[in-house]
Amino acid sequence: MNILESVNTPADVRALPADKLPALARQIREFLIENISRTGGHLASSLGAVELTLALHYCYDTPSDKIVWDVGHQAYPHKIITGRRGQFSTIRQHGGISGFPRISESPYDSFSVGHASTSISAALGMAIGRDILGEKHSVVAVIGDGSMSGGLAFEGLNNLGSSSTAMTVVLNDNEMSISRNVGALSRYFNRALTDKRYNKLKDYVWDLLSDRAVIGKGIRDIIRKVDNGIKHMIIPGKLFEDMGLRYFGPIDGHNLADMIEVFSSIKELSRGPALVHVVTKKGKGYRHAENNATKFHGVSKFTPETGVVIKPAAHVPTYSGVFGAAMVELGHTNPKLAAITAAMPDGTGLNDFRDAYPDRFFDVGIAEGHAVTFAAGLALKGLRPVVAIYSSFLQRAYDQIMQDVALDGINVVFCIDRAGLVGDDGPTHHGNFDVSYLNTVPGAVIMAPKGGKELRDMLFTAIGHEGGPVFIRYPRGNAPFGGGSAEFEAIEIASPMVVKQGKKAALLSLGDMYPDAQKACEMLSAQGVSAGLIDARFAKPLSIDFYKKLFSDYELVATLENNTLAGGFGSSVRALAAELNSHSQIITIGLPDKFIPHGDVAKLKAEIGLTPEDIAKRVLAGLRG
Amino acid sequence: MNILESVNTPADVRALPADKLPALARQIREFLIENISRTGGHLASSLGAVELTLALHYCYDTPSDKIVWDVGHQAYPHKIITGRRGQFSTIRQHGGISGFPRISESPYDSFSVGHASTSISAALGMAIGRDILGEKHSVVAVIGDGSMSGGLAFEGLNNLGSSSTAMTVVLNDNEMSISRNVGALSRYFNRALTDKRYNKLKDYVWDLLSDRAVIGKGIRDIIRKVDNGIKHMIIPGKLFEDMGLRYFGPIDGHNLADMIEVFSSIKELSRGPALVHVVTKKGKGYRHAENNATKFHGVSKFTPETGVVIKPAAHVPTYSGVFGAAMVELGHTNPKLAAITAAMPDGTGLNDFRDAYPDRFFDVGIAEGHAVTFAAGLALKGLRPVVAIYSSFLQRAYDQIMQDVALDGINVVFCIDRAGLVGDDGPTHHGNFDVSYLNTVPGAVIMAPKGGKELRDMLFTAIGHEGGPVFIRYPRGNAPFGGGSAEFEAIEIASPMVVKQGKKAALLSLGDMYPDAQKACEMLSAQGVSAGLIDARFAKPLSIDFYKKLFSDYELVATLENNTLAGGFGSSVRALAAELNSHSQIITIGLPDKFIPHGDVAKLKAEIGLTPEDIAKRVLAGLRG
Repeated sequence: MNILESVNTPADVRALPADKLPALARQIREFLIENISRTGGHLASSLGAVELTLALHYCYDTPSDKIVWDVGHQAYPHKIITGRRGQFSTIRQHGGISGFPRISESPYDSFSVGHASTSISAALGMAIGRDILGEKHSVVAVIGDGSMSGGLAFEGLNNLGSSSTAMTVVLNDNEMSISRNVGALSRYFNRALTDKRYNKLKDYVWDLLSDRAVIGKGIRDIIRKVDNGIKHMIIPGKLFEDMGLRYFGPIDGHNLADMIEVFSSIKELSRGPALVHVVTKKGKGYRHAENNATKFHGVSKFTPETGVVIKPAAHVPTYSGVFGAAMVELGHTNPKLAAITAAMPDGTGLNDFRDAYPDRFFDVGIAEGHAVTFAAGLALKGLRPVVAIYSSFLQRAYDQIMQDVALDGINVVFCIDRAGLVGDDGPTHHGNFDVSYLNTVPGAVIMAPKGGKELRDMLFTAIGHEGGPVFIRYPRGNAPFGGGSAEFEAIEIASPMVVKQGKKAALLSLGDMYPDAQKACEMLSAQGVSAGLIDARFAKPLSIDFYKKLFSDYELVATLENNTLAGGFGSSVRALAAELNSHSQIITIGLPDKFIPHGDVAKLKAEIGLTPEDIAKRVLAGLRG
Repeated sequence: MNILESVNTPADVRALPADKLPALARQIREFLIENISRTGGHLASSLGAVELTLALHYCYDTPSDKIVWDVGHQAYPHKIITGRRGQFSTIRQHGGISGFPRISESPYDSFSVGHASTSISAALGMAIGRDILGEKHSVVAVIGDGSMSGGLAFEGLNNLGSSSTAMTVVLNDNEMSISRNVGALSRYFNRALTDKRYNKLKDYVWDLLSDRAVIGKGIRDIIRKVDNGIKHMIIPGKLFEDMGLRYFGPIDGHNLADMIEVFSSIKELSRGPALVHVVTKKGKGYRHAENNATKFHGVSKFTPETGVVIKPAAHVPTYSGVFGAAMVELGHTNPKLAAITAAMPDGTGLNDFRDAYPDRFFDVGIAEGHAVTFAAGLALKGLRPVVAIYSSFLQRAYDQIMQDVALDGINVVFCIDRAGLVGDDGPTHHGNFDVSYLNTVPGAVIMAPKGGKELRDMLFTAIGHEGGPVFIRYPRGNAPFGGGSAEFEAIEIASPMVVKQGKKAALLSLGDMYPDAQKACEMLSAQGVSAGLIDARFAKPLSIDFYKKLFSDYELVATLENNTLAGGFGSSVRALAAELNSHSQIITIGLPDKFIPHGDVAKLKAEIGLTPEDIAKRVLAGLRG
């Protein structure tokens, strides 16, 4: 019998007898594997959270009660049972449902997420808002152990622990966030769960306390007094109790009955902050994902039976891959080169560097602010740290970039992956702001390569640069124009590369807009306009000599960037043109001042007006106007 | 005998017999009080850290050994004994020494600081850098209990605790950061220090363990095994030990002998991370500061004998004061209005709101990211949160503003105090980037008032605005143009105010540049140029109708902003002019793309070229050119 087909809302789940839930969990898993094998998506975390999702919706009266999912990778089962089963095959696709909880998508999505560690703070706001308004409902934040390494989660806990509001944090502990977990807190969880000494001690003490014959009353009283302390020492919650949260657990996150019992009783009590420590297995119930949770964290299409990912035939290296390989090469000749990632050794391509130079590789966990300030410390000792962080996550470290690196011109290199539109993950992951927010950083050097070879050379240049932070931004996906083992060549700071001289109009392309610029140039040529084609290479600083000549050579300059126009590359070019009293017409082409939805990048670009055709049209119109 | 006069470097301190140090501490205090009474500055924290500073420099071989001061408010004694006693009277003044440790100022300043919670991350970078390079020296981070509430400090601890590097964190626990302390962690420290029950329990258990007669061997063995756990329960370091740091303390931070003993032995051991918990009194040794540490945190000139602050005679309300009073008024009629500060109830002017509506006031501690995400949660429940944070500290929450508030157009109001140049505190505290980094936020409304009355009306407008975040930025200091109890008037979003029509040229002033614009306008008038004078009010969005007319009315428009020109207000105006195919000349006047030193704001403006004379000159040159 297919129970899942009868479940359209959580009320349908609550109407089921509890003993039907394990079967429902099985059916959700099958549904997930089947669907994600066809669309790709965040499979492993979602498989691990099936029972947890059911137990929460079973015990809590959603959507009146609020569940805030941290990051949202694990929220597919939640989507399936909250009315989105029918649309599930459209997940992460253009026009389809989002891969993350979004307020705008469902009343059951109480908070929009995508970046880690926000759930406790947001949920605390909802809980205290409820108290102020005199309403009655529960608020639950569900946070993975990986997200707990983020400072924001700690700030939330620190505030929650000192409040008296009724709110529950579910720590979904799968002993691994995206890859393996990092940090002292993670080790603390792990020790608490696995140390046999602790369990043995627990048995000793409990025997002691129950055996009235062995000890006298006086001693027993004393021990009773310290009982609480001993209990806390031998169970793993003391750290949270020290922070003011009642601790429950650890409980098996795949045992529905246990979880339902705990959640029901906490809901019943409904006083003060509580933390429920739930232990789950990432990839649970799908052998291939259990064995390789990292591969199945965010997976592309695969064959369900074998777990083999269906890859496109041709193999072009990705930007991340080119970066990772170049780091290994450069690390060989430069013993002071160090690499830092914030929980993304795979995604950033730093895996090989880690394996080659483990002493100079640092995975700091989900802690972008720390990554940057830590890098400043390394650099002050004379090392050359390269911090590799995705564009949208680097937003977390804006202040550290400004204060801890740029203020003193400390030599830290930033490799900003996933810059520009990323596609399926949507607005929480698009990297469409980095050129703009980094433009404000005094002394910054901002580069963007048009392909693999240039990325290598820019990295080489950045590592050799003295005088402050250097940022290299590049997109998700394949890197054109080589990327193999060519000789490294230094690039003169601020110098663009003129690919083709033209007349009247010039296309001034930043980074990965180059292939589109090239096509637009050909289209213009076909229409009788011989436009210049320039690979800008630097968004900051701009060479005054070069641009002076450019403005005098061309009556129209069109800037192209995969970044918001607000404060972006085009804005800098326009400011320089004004400063130089140029009369060239500057057309700035880039991302609009809005959040861009998820979907295939080519479709998004077409919607925005960023295709080669659009570019050619804008230039022609400009020349006519 | 004046020992201080013979102390020019820490080596001079180390050459002293330890029994001379208390006298030196006394002389440093006298020197501090005398000097700061004449210059103003961060007195209370520095008074609290005199013995700690001496003990550290006595035990550690600075500058080979590295001391990283968190925030740096407490670093005046450090400055005095590291060669800057002679310049101390110039502290925080234009051309004088900085109020914060700066790498560029002294080899003893191992890290530049100003924003909280960075020390552990930076010191960890130095310690690991040392290990990689095979060097031998100690690294010490000194962090206050207030700074420990910042997520960055937690990220640093989490990484430190899982490393095996030799590094020491000194927790300088004065039970109050700038005002009273916030959060669960703070309560944890406090309980650990003061709970009599804990001390009694400690006695019980120690008696139990030492009394061989009472208990049999088997039980004693068991208790021995749990001994460590019991010990940790009754001493306050368990939380840190759980995070992987050896814990020492609490020790009296005014007892030089005790501290020297502990630091010496830790330095001797030099293995793994350690935390020394030092308890100090803010304002120590100066009665007036001990009694009112908040007043003497950052104090202006005062009479040393009485502790009375020497105030200027005329009393004009500050922007913070106008904001605070308006919040109290608005909170009276709007029961859903809530206020959030990150450890700055005094500085932001929210004290009165706190007293009037304690249930709707939240001091979240030094935790700007949490403040913003928490506000989003409150707003989703229907409250109207106003987050008041200084401009440069709000940089810490850029990602939370983008992802947790703007992405869904959640109604959170941001009141950004200390926007633009702040003066004495210098580049770590100047708020010269907010218009630019907020310009990148889709859907944001950014306003800036020219004075008190307009601030009131903007706040009123923001609280009534539906459709996403509203930012109001205003400077440190006095608010011109009223601010009292005038009726609140709503301002139409995006609408500037034309103060004076003119010919040919218009001055378009954002926020607090208005008085300078007004003077420049008068100067131009005296030279026969009748310039228009416009209070822009909004940096974003810009009214297309208004600006279309403006560009057609004036051949030159000069934008004025107390913000970096990179991506700032002028940049938006220029982009709009281009979009509208305007041929007006746009001159953008504002802060240059560099870090601006500390000193009197008027002097800084003169240096930068932001005086009314400079503005008038730029306009005249533009009209001629």
